[in-house]
Amino acid sequence: MTKAKSGPKQGTLIIIGGHEDHDGDKVILKEVASHVRNGKLVLATIVSHEPDGYLEKYQASFAELGVGHVTELYVEDRTEANDEAKLKALDDVQAVFFSGGDQLRITSQIGGTPVVDRVMEIYRSGGVIAGTSAGASMMSDTMLVKGTSGASFRVGDVRMAPGLGLLPNTIIDQHFAERGRIGRLIGAVSQNPRELGIGIDEDTAIVVEGDQFRVIGSGAVYLVDASGATYSDVTEADTRTTLSIHDLKLHVLSSGDRFDMVTRRPVQG
Amino acid sequence: MTKAKSGPKQGTLIIIGGHEDHDGDKVILKEVASHVRNGKLVLATIVSHEPDGYLEKYQASFAELGVGHVTELYVEDRTEANDEAKLKALDDVQAVFFSGGDQLRITSQIGGTPVVDRVMEIYRSGGVIAGTSAGASMMSDTMLVKGTSGASFRVGDVRMAPGLGLLPNTIIDQHFAERGRIGRLIGAVSQNPRELGIGIDEDTAIVVEGDQFRVIGSGAVYLVDASGATYSDVTEADTRTTLSIHDLKLHVLSSGDRFDMVTRRPVQG
Repeated sequence: MTKAKSGPKQGTLIIIGGHEDHDGDKVILKEVASHVRNGKLVLATIVSHEPDGYLEKYQASFAELGVGHVTELYVEDRTEANDEAKLKALDDVQAVFFSGGDQLRITSQIGGTPVVDRVMEIYRSGGVIAGTSAGASMMSDTMLVKGTSGASFRVGDVRMAPGLGLLPNTIIDQHFAERGRIGRLIGAVSQNPRELGIGIDEDTAIVVEGDQFRVIGSGAVYLVDASGATYSDVTEADTRTTLSIHDLKLHVLSSGDRFDMVTRRPVQG
Repeated sequence: MTKAKSGPKQGTLIIIGGHEDHDGDKVILKEVASHVRNGKLVLATIVSHEPDGYLEKYQASFAELGVGHVTELYVEDRTEANDEAKLKALDDVQAVFFSGGDQLRITSQIGGTPVVDRVMEIYRSGGVIAGTSAGASMMSDTMLVKGTSGASFRVGDVRMAPGLGLLPNTIIDQHFAERGRIGRLIGAVSQNPRELGIGIDEDTAIVVEGDQFRVIGSGAVYLVDASGATYSDVTEADTRTTLSIHDLKLHVLSSGDRFDMVTRRPVQG
């Protein structure tokens, strides 16, 4: 069994597979709101020009849930990520919510800058870091950047890069069932089964506290554990060959289920 | 370990995930052709009005591979499935190739008729029964008829019906990675883990002889084995709830790999 590296654990991560509900029960946003209470939430639209009305949509949804203070942090480039005014936007903040877009643009523009240091501080001091879609992918140490959806994995298909490392020893994928991404997640974890593959459907999230998470929302979360795999041809095959891998373990979890990332087991009851 | 029921085993099944290649190496059609040699092949387009040129396409492809005798068996309804002239079309035939369409239309129109009896005789006497897409699904005892693609499984989502039973103890799904069907296959096998889930990609096939099969073609074959599952809420949840199931075993196989359906293990080497 792979042991999780001991990372920062004091806060809460809410990792969302994209398209969280804004119109119905808002289960996922409600979970975020329950951690923020009367505090401040920053919507981090790092290098993503979100369409007009995007911030307003989150402000309206969160206002209904009792969170009145929602501001945007838009960072254009690395120069801005070192800007004092931008950093001030993260003062006295209880939650940072990363929007979607392109995970590589997020990490390339803010990785190693004071903005990430501040996000880590917020997390370590008990705050919430949430991310949806690309904002979910970048939570892992090594993040999945690109890979074929709706296809089986061909060795060489997948592109990975260093993520923010908030959730160590995992590779996170999003829009999971909707875009048919089991193949690329298997391909990613086959390259180092130390990493636990976590595939999160739309309108579905994992709420991570300590070594465990629980599932909320309407879809499923897939855990792909290759640590017991008995065979894989990931290194032998040429890059256009379809991957073979034997004895993967797969868990499908839904709302209310809990999982322990150290034992890599669902938590019963 | 679930033992396979002893079914007819003398012939060969070639079960194809749809869209087998006609323009390149024709790996799958070549495999079919290698079993037919100088014999006759019937393209069974049961109740599927295939577009003009469909039969001609198969005739041309098979002619290139040395199979000169390819005829069509089109059966409009159950009355025709009892027709002597239709049955004569299956005399002295080495291979029957079921085209795609709607698996429920195939079984509802020919199930329990002399046409199926003749197909079984051909199989038992050493012939080849091939099927692509819907023609693949209908090979199992209990066949998957409908279910959501590109979504996780909600209890009640999937519809099953009795298949032709050529490959006992399995549930076969096709266009597998391309249409994101892992969710529905997991949902189907969770209802009775005696059945082994077999998900076949496009331009990919399994060649079944005896208790083993081997994989050919460009994609992957997914084996979903729920026999070791430690938990499933398939009976408890209401029909709109997303399924939870723990400890599935998953194998991903590609061209050249072999699998034993009795031991439910990939065959090494």
